Amino acid sequence: MSMRELGEWTVRDAGFREADVLANGNRMLIGNGYLGYRGTVEEADASDMAATIVSGLYDRYGDKWREPVNAPNALSVRLVAPGDEPLTLRSRLLASHEQALDFRYGVWSRNTSWKVDGVTVTVKSERFASMDSPHEMLLRYTVETDGKIALRMQRGIDCAVRDINGPHLGAFEFAGTGGDLEVTCKTLELGIPLRVRSAAATDFPAAPAEPAPPKKGEACFRAEYLLDCLPGISYSLTVYAEVSAGSDPDAGMFAPRVGPFDGMSGEFRYREALARHKAAWDAVWADGDVEIEGDDAARRALRYSIYHLQIIAPRHSRDLSIPARGLSGQTYKGAIFWDTEMFIAPYFLVTDPEVAKRFIRYRIKTLDGARRKAAEYGYRGAFYAWESQESGDDACSHFNVVDVFTGRPMRTFFRDKQVHISADVAYAIREYVESTGDWSILDEGAFEVLVECARFFMSYAWYSPTRRRYEILDVTGPDEYHERVNNDAFTNRMALLVFDTLLEYADGLEKRGSSLPAETYAKTGFLDELPLLRDMAENLYVPSPGPNGVIEQFDGYYALEDASLAEVRSRLLDPKEYWGGGNGVATNTRVIKQADVVLMLNLFGDEYDGAVKKANLGYYEPRTEHGSSLSACMYSLLSCETGDSAWSYPFFRKTAEIDITGESKQFAGLIYIGGTHPAANGGAWISASRGFCGFAVAGGEIRLAPRLPAGWTKVSFTARVRGVRHKITVTKDGYTVC
Amino acid sequence: MSMRELGEWTVRDAGFREADVLANGNRMLIGNGYLGYRGTVEEADASDMAATIVSGLYDRYGDKWREPVNAPNALSVRLVAPGDEPLTLRSRLLASHEQALDFRYGVWSRNTSWKVDGVTVTVKSERFASMDSPHEMLLRYTVETDGKIALRMQRGIDCAVRDINGPHLGAFEFAGTGGDLEVTCKTLELGIPLRVRSAAATDFPAAPAEPAPPKKGEACFRAEYLLDCLPGISYSLTVYAEVSAGSDPDAGMFAPRVGPFDGMSGEFRYREALARHKAAWDAVWADGDVEIEGDDAARRALRYSIYHLQIIAPRHSRDLSIPARGLSGQTYKGAIFWDTEMFIAPYFLVTDPEVAKRFIRYRIKTLDGARRKAAEYGYRGAFYAWESQESGDDACSHFNVVDVFTGRPMRTFFRDKQVHISADVAYAIREYVESTGDWSILDEGAFEVLVECARFFMSYAWYSPTRRRYEILDVTGPDEYHERVNNDAFTNRMALLVFDTLLEYADGLEKRGSSLPAETYAKTGFLDELPLLRDMAENLYVPSPGPNGVIEQFDGYYALEDASLAEVRSRLLDPKEYWGGGNGVATNTRVIKQADVVLMLNLFGDEYDGAVKKANLGYYEPRTEHGSSLSACMYSLLSCETGDSAWSYPFFRKTAEIDITGESKQFAGLIYIGGTHPAANGGAWISASRGFCGFAVAGGEIRLAPRLPAGWTKVSFTARVRGVRHKITVTKDGYTVC
Repeated sequence: MSMRELGEWTVRDAGFREADVLANGNRMLIGNGYLGYRGTVEEADASDMAATIVSGLYDRYGDKWREPVNAPNALSVRLVAPGDEPLTLRSRLLASHEQALDFRYGVWSRNTSWKVDGVTVTVKSERFASMDSPHEMLLRYTVETDGKIALRMQRGIDCAVRDINGPHLGAFEFAGTGGDLEVTCKTLELGIPLRVRSAAATDFPAAPAEPAPPKKGEACFRAEYLLDCLPGISYSLTVYAEVSAGSDPDAGMFAPRVGPFDGMSGEFRYREALARHKAAWDAVWADGDVEIEGDDAARRALRYSIYHLQIIAPRHSRDLSIPARGLSGQTYKGAIFWDTEMFIAPYFLVTDPEVAKRFIRYRIKTLDGARRKAAEYGYRGAFYAWESQESGDDACSHFNVVDVFTGRPMRTFFRDKQVHISADVAYAIREYVESTGDWSILDEGAFEVLVECARFFMSYAWYSPTRRRYEILDVTGPDEYHERVNNDAFTNRMALLVFDTLLEYADGLEKRGSSLPAETYAKTGFLDELPLLRDMAENLYVPSPGPNGVIEQFDGYYALEDASLAEVRSRLLDPKEYWGGGNGVATNTRVIKQADVVLMLNLFGDEYDGAVKKANLGYYEPRTEHGSSLSACMYSLLSCETGDSAWSYPFFRKTAEIDITGESKQFAGLIYIGGTHPAANGGAWISASRGFCGFAVAGGEIRLAPRLPAGWTKVSFTARVRGVRHKITVTKDGYTVC
Repeated sequence: MSMRELGEWTVRDAGFREADVLANGNRMLIGNGYLGYRGTVEEADASDMAATIVSGLYDRYGDKWREPVNAPNALSVRLVAPGDEPLTLRSRLLASHEQALDFRYGVWSRNTSWKVDGVTVTVKSERFASMDSPHEMLLRYTVETDGKIALRMQRGIDCAVRDINGPHLGAFEFAGTGGDLEVTCKTLELGIPLRVRSAAATDFPAAPAEPAPPKKGEACFRAEYLLDCLPGISYSLTVYAEVSAGSDPDAGMFAPRVGPFDGMSGEFRYREALARHKAAWDAVWADGDVEIEGDDAARRALRYSIYHLQIIAPRHSRDLSIPARGLSGQTYKGAIFWDTEMFIAPYFLVTDPEVAKRFIRYRIKTLDGARRKAAEYGYRGAFYAWESQESGDDACSHFNVVDVFTGRPMRTFFRDKQVHISADVAYAIREYVESTGDWSILDEGAFEVLVECARFFMSYAWYSPTRRRYEILDVTGPDEYHERVNNDAFTNRMALLVFDTLLEYADGLEKRGSSLPAETYAKTGFLDELPLLRDMAENLYVPSPGPNGVIEQFDGYYALEDASLAEVRSRLLDPKEYWGGGNGVATNTRVIKQADVVLMLNLFGDEYDGAVKKANLGYYEPRTEHGSSLSACMYSLLSCETGDSAWSYPFFRKTAEIDITGESKQFAGLIYIGGTHPAANGGAWISASRGFCGFAVAGGEIRLAPRLPAGWTKVSFTARVRGVRHKITVTKDGYTVC
């Protein structure tokens, strides 16, 4: 049984437990936005799901799902004791083990001992993915013993990586000397080159054997050191790893400034890189930190969440976004979901608006993909991908879940019916412009995105001649357990936002004398559609609160069985079965997966009074499974609004700690969906800042409304609004903005 | 192993096989439109699914499905040998058994022997449900032996009937003497009284013991005769049974004209009733027969199909219709489906238009139920029940199939999405008026039905502002394996027919000086909606043939996997699993349950040329599972149209023999759906008359186009068109109409 320990800035796990291999891979992930490296030990292999995930690099094998490429592992080190006895965590010789993550600086470390024939062999190591130099990872690996023993240390590049739907790489070429190994290869689908370098320097005088390219059946390109260990002496290895791909943005711009060693000792090189790395992190925290006083656990959890956002922020690119599972692996196909716009972008919007801008540029870049998707389904404009990869074509299949009872793929309607994604993109554009005051993004293509998103909803909406209004039919809202519903309150309100935003920004641009609207209409042939746009903006139906204040989530929701959450859960015949889809236990009940109406009330808070918010919170929360990591934070936020921070607090903690505890849904049907949860990480920030501090930006002005939970004495954070950096401090009774 | 034997007018089954108990119950059903009595032996009980189904009488137990009431069995007779040995078909003493149905006159008979201690005991019996007197059934039961033996003959009213979702009866009262037993009881839900009488006369001098009302735990109200049998002597019992219910139409009007015996001997009473019964049948056949020459099997099968239609024709009522499984049991909830309008009515329309008129009156009577259903789903007008019982409220649940893998009810969209039912009703009205020339049905309420059906589709249809047309979304067409589709070709075309028919008949009525349209519009508030009706009739989208002549069944059908029928079948993991629904094997493929586009091409044959018909036939037939008994006849019919009667012939045979062979789907998921197949029976007639003879009525004129299959030399049948009775004879090369 392992023991988890949380320090001010550390997560530490002592002991070895099989189940923690996967969990710690996520929990102790390091990364720098360009790559993510899972928190596994150096000797870990494919079975441990060791992985180096390269952002923006995808591949498809056969007719399986496209997914991120897992690069050959440049930090592989194995220690072999006499008698060809590999020293691993599963070895019966294991004496002790602990590993930790410093999440202030993204430094992973371990301390492991084995007892070999009476001799204690200890490995200590430390690694980081440079925040200063995106292609660079460094590892310092030290062996110590308390007796004489001959060990073999094998280090190199392990190409036998684990893929969910692989293999993805071929045309391997191996080069280099024992001290400097290099593997080049290509992705199978598109032939994108990938280069992995692993250079090593030892503190001790021991030349490795010349490496031989892996033989058939082998997959590790390795150099071996023979260590005749003496007690009390440290044998240290420094590995410099460099990963780069043909898909990298601005290739060269972010090329490493320093070579592997350039005459430096391993130790010096490591410390030099670490110093630069830490300085970069200090700059990140200067604007990115939130300091909560009076609640150590909350402070730690929120900072840990922010850490997870920062290690996947695509600073190295100008138009990349963040996948739903970050860079923690291949789950969710490494795809970008609405998570980014709705749950992740708010944090960056005020702490580092340039990162938020990258998310929008990514949607501009993938506009053609969204156009293709709209056309595929017979619509006009831009229907953004539910699961978006590098081209914006939808990586989501029509069969996204495997039925546990038959093993058959199950038809789900994420791809073709979750149309709110196009509105979410427009919402993010609006939020960006409102918060930053930076209208240049509209010129960069965002205005055209707005036009095409509006056009999409115009072709998706229907006019009811008997009800004399436009309605939006056959959609799936955020609550994915109810597919193909009509007049989903959230979706309809969001579509209206798209129409309103386009009209408002077109007007605003024209008033500024910009020819952008005219040019865009001409280019896209939209001019004739303006009257319809105005009519729809006037006459689109948005469900409103009923007599009891509750907004019906969609047409007919109240006709569903009102079974309790516990009752619905008790109907499960298999813990892994999917709650939604054609025959799921929630499908025909009012039990919902996640905040849906409640999300809408958060986004459009000014349009609803407190009584409505309270009524919907009270109605929907007991019916919410919180089966999505996007759910709890929205309940937390709304319950702050309704003045009940105490009720809200557990939702905040649940959201902020999701990647510490690892207690999230690991399966949808038979599909593994584990990994980190950037949207929850962002949601934790939303909950703390927008919720407990009542932070908002309206009309370019900062608004605050303190409602700190019990124990919290002060919250401090930074917000950049309209180009100005503000230092905000919120206490129980007041706030300051400097 | 039993042996089936078909005579010119008989179906005979020799031997006993467990599986045939259920099959022969359907196969040898007798009935007279008022009641149906299953083809089981006298000693059969609940476990054999013995049943007396009373038309128009339904009950609901708890929250289970409403279903027809199975009346106490008034024809129960049991024979007990010495040593309390019951003589049943399952007895080890059984020596021989055969049972038969004379389907010219609807007389069921048996001949069964047992060997008891060296003595052969033979039971011969015969029964019929009087075609002359609807409440009456008669049974003649004779015991003979070849040695001396003491037998106990118990006869009475067995109240322990089997229900699918029962019990349905309570408040039992027992009265009478040994010779004349009577049970009265009430349905549980609505308290409708039900009276069952069973009077007996014996040819031999033996007074029965006085009957005692059943004790607690017993369910048979019985009188016992002790027979000291002598060899060569016949001991005959005549049972007169009478069933009547509080729900009977025109109570009294159809009351038996003669009492049970009125001083007549049992034998005389039986022969007298049989003679009247046969005379009534002769009258039925005079107009109802189709004589095929040159193909004995086809002639028999078609007549057998007609028999099954005639025994359920509701002649005793002025406004009753025919359930989808006739009066053969409680499956399909005894409900009336579109089967009546589309597959059964055509036969009666020209052989006995008064029966066809009853079907329409039934829809007029249930208009308010259809209005309630429309309102329930937020629509206007009349949304007829998918499964209609006496009130027109929908007996269909949202969960109509049980998932074989989880045992859970499965959400199906028969009830709420199979909107074509309202168009089918309008279609039947149009067909009736066109064929009979009888416009009085419009005054009786059919015009109002047309208004309300049109209004329903007007509120169901949507206008696409970008495609500038009305579309019909989210429906289930005849092919139930594909639920919730848009622009189903059949449904859209049928909706257009509703609009056109209403406009045309309103016009026709006004030209005749009728104030009916104006009055109906005033009464229903429809006047303001006329402009919309006209606009929709002009601009409703109906899918048309593509370049290859094929009409896409619905939007997106071509995007489904084009797996072969064999391939789809091979994916079944359980023979009983449902092919459609959320996770069915056909759901996401192009495999369809039954004729859908092909049905439309039959109904609107004048609008499509031969090449289109051929193309669709060739395209859809290989993709059709024929999982419905409504399917084969439509393929048969269209292939006659395209000039390939040879191709068509097997479909005709399959349709006409479905209730002889019993080879039809017996399960949908875990729900038993067996019984007779009136729609297929009607389809067989359609196939023979409209298909092979090319019979049609257009503008009140009979059209014929002989295309007889190989072997057929002549087909003769009767058709009443516009009040005139025509005798039609079709040969290979020509036809005569007298």
